[in-house]
Amino acid sequence: MAADRLARVRARMEELGVDALLLSLGADLPWLTGYAAHESERLTMFVVPRDGDPAMVVPGLEAPKVASVSTVALRPWSETEDPVKLVAALVGPAARSVAISDRTWSTFLLGLQEAMPAVSWLASSTVTSPLRARKDADEIEALRRAAAAADVVAASLLGGEIPLIGRREVDVSREIAQRLRDEGHSRVGFSIVGSGPNGASPHHDASDKVIGEGEAIVCDFGGWFEGGYCSDITRTVFTGDPPAEFVELYEVLQRAQAAAVDAAVVGTPCEDVDGVARTIITDAGYGEYFIHRTGHGIGLEGHEHPYLVSGNDEPLAPGHAFSIEPGIYIPGRWGARIEDIVVATDAGPDSLNRANHDLHVVEA
Amino acid sequence: MAADRLARVRARMEELGVDALLLSLGADLPWLTGYAAHESERLTMFVVPRDGDPAMVVPGLEAPKVASVSTVALRPWSETEDPVKLVAALVGPAARSVAISDRTWSTFLLGLQEAMPAVSWLASSTVTSPLRARKDADEIEALRRAAAAADVVAASLLGGEIPLIGRREVDVSREIAQRLRDEGHSRVGFSIVGSGPNGASPHHDASDKVIGEGEAIVCDFGGWFEGGYCSDITRTVFTGDPPAEFVELYEVLQRAQAAAVDAAVVGTPCEDVDGVARTIITDAGYGEYFIHRTGHGIGLEGHEHPYLVSGNDEPLAPGHAFSIEPGIYIPGRWGARIEDIVVATDAGPDSLNRANHDLHVVEA
Repeated sequence: MAADRLARVRARMEELGVDALLLSLGADLPWLTGYAAHESERLTMFVVPRDGDPAMVVPGLEAPKVASVSTVALRPWSETEDPVKLVAALVGPAARSVAISDRTWSTFLLGLQEAMPAVSWLASSTVTSPLRARKDADEIEALRRAAAAADVVAASLLGGEIPLIGRREVDVSREIAQRLRDEGHSRVGFSIVGSGPNGASPHHDASDKVIGEGEAIVCDFGGWFEGGYCSDITRTVFTGDPPAEFVELYEVLQRAQAAAVDAAVVGTPCEDVDGVARTIITDAGYGEYFIHRTGHGIGLEGHEHPYLVSGNDEPLAPGHAFSIEPGIYIPGRWGARIEDIVVATDAGPDSLNRANHDLHVVEA
Repeated sequence: MAADRLARVRARMEELGVDALLLSLGADLPWLTGYAAHESERLTMFVVPRDGDPAMVVPGLEAPKVASVSTVALRPWSETEDPVKLVAALVGPAARSVAISDRTWSTFLLGLQEAMPAVSWLASSTVTSPLRARKDADEIEALRRAAAAADVVAASLLGGEIPLIGRREVDVSREIAQRLRDEGHSRVGFSIVGSGPNGASPHHDASDKVIGEGEAIVCDFGGWFEGGYCSDITRTVFTGDPPAEFVELYEVLQRAQAAAVDAAVVGTPCEDVDGVARTIITDAGYGEYFIHRTGHGIGLEGHEHPYLVSGNDEPLAPGHAFSIEPGIYIPGRWGARIEDIVVATDAGPDSLNRANHDLHVVEA
């Protein structure tokens, strides 16, 4: 277990008056212990009292797996035991404020609330997110390697190595996913391919639609690289000669993305970075078509704190890692998005992704 | 939306006195609407009042994706709105009992509890699991297709088409995953390869360990087949000539698995099926090495109701689909497991997996 991280977590618990921290699904657990809970109806829960020794309640059949990657004390439970009761016993009757992993299944929280009626609950991110959001040097290097792997795949897309015209979106999506795995990703999180009007749906997946000539293709892909840190990149290409209207839209987008990266300096409130991209896009007349925030933090999870969104006045700090990904989406017509992962440093914003931003025309 | 399913859900809500059902992550939502929520910090939640029209609270940028697969009414929210407040408003101030998807992130449940302090909460599976557990004819066919695809991969393993000796577990795991995708799986859920002592850890993943001669290899793999229903199969092979001790252990296991399948007849309590396998294994002296339940339900989720475990006296009903997967695990030495998916029918147990159960010796 990372002893310095545990010490910092306990200092936050002290500061917030939290008596126990319960970690299950999500990245708080691997960040602290090196072990990620299996997503399952069998509860895994790491119990961290503010004082006293932490222990992990774990299904008996998974105990050997935990022991192989982590040195934490284990409390394995057999198939006929109730893990919720074990957790409640470890927390103890004196606890009044308990934090639980944001992603813990509600069914477990409901059981814990019944077992500990005197407790008031909060999300573990309240404790951990300020700590996890600031990446250390090793974490930044891990993100850099993940970004470099995604860049290789992006370069094949921009260079025309991945055939587009005449193929279904879903086939292109699978090829991108396979290339991410080939470049060292242990798990692909998503591989969006939105062509033509589908590109105007930012979270479009990849459909049976066949990609045609004269279409914009929004490709947004990433996942977990070896070691557990995430990649996330978006590039938009055009099949054949793009019309002037799209060239103009893309030029605005490219300018907005670059300006937002430049604005991501230490001390700047997150919402101001969003504002920089939004102002450029709005001034060019596309404001109503930029329908999402400018970015999200990234680390052991694909989306985490800090979020670059209106209303988040948290100032950027050294080690904050996040996406910068404005987009313009004209319903029924086309869409475009450019996304890089950026780290705020004392020397200015450091863009981890280096794949080219210019509008690439793909003929094949 | 499946109107008959909605009617059955509402009848259960009436029966249990549930005023509203809130569906987010997990399979209740796609089972009812055809749409699976994106796992995200942006809340998707389908609000089903016991009376009145249901509506889906959905991130604005995902609304087009939902509309492309489902006809449910949408309440998109923009990046600066609070979706928890929207859900609370749709539930209304009169609600006293609300059910929420088992897998909803705790952070959302905590927000909803704060917004609706007069409500008592229960897990949505209390409402839906008796309905979802009994598969209809179409669902059984979907499970059968998924099982057939997994059988093809299992047959390549048993037939020696997948090289084992001299390769790392993780490489074999990746090949199995790729073959599952090639056979029509849209997503691989897991691909466990446990060789030698690693086979004694039932939820071992796949490590860098190189597979040697004279080892038992437990391979447990499956995922989501086209259409969304799951596969899950385990076969154990031996590299080279197996010692008499392993042959004997395997013979006991094979007998226990077959007997448990035979016992899975309509009307039999779930725990009795577990008991049949456990008695055979215990009588042969391996009881302490069978450290997990005999099986789990399967459908749109890899693990769902009913569970074949001591303490579950629910009788099997026609359409119940579940795994039968006893295992024997000798710590530090080796392990073995055989798993098929079985459906309880009025004509007796129907084993969907057909790949051979005999101990296969793989030379390559």
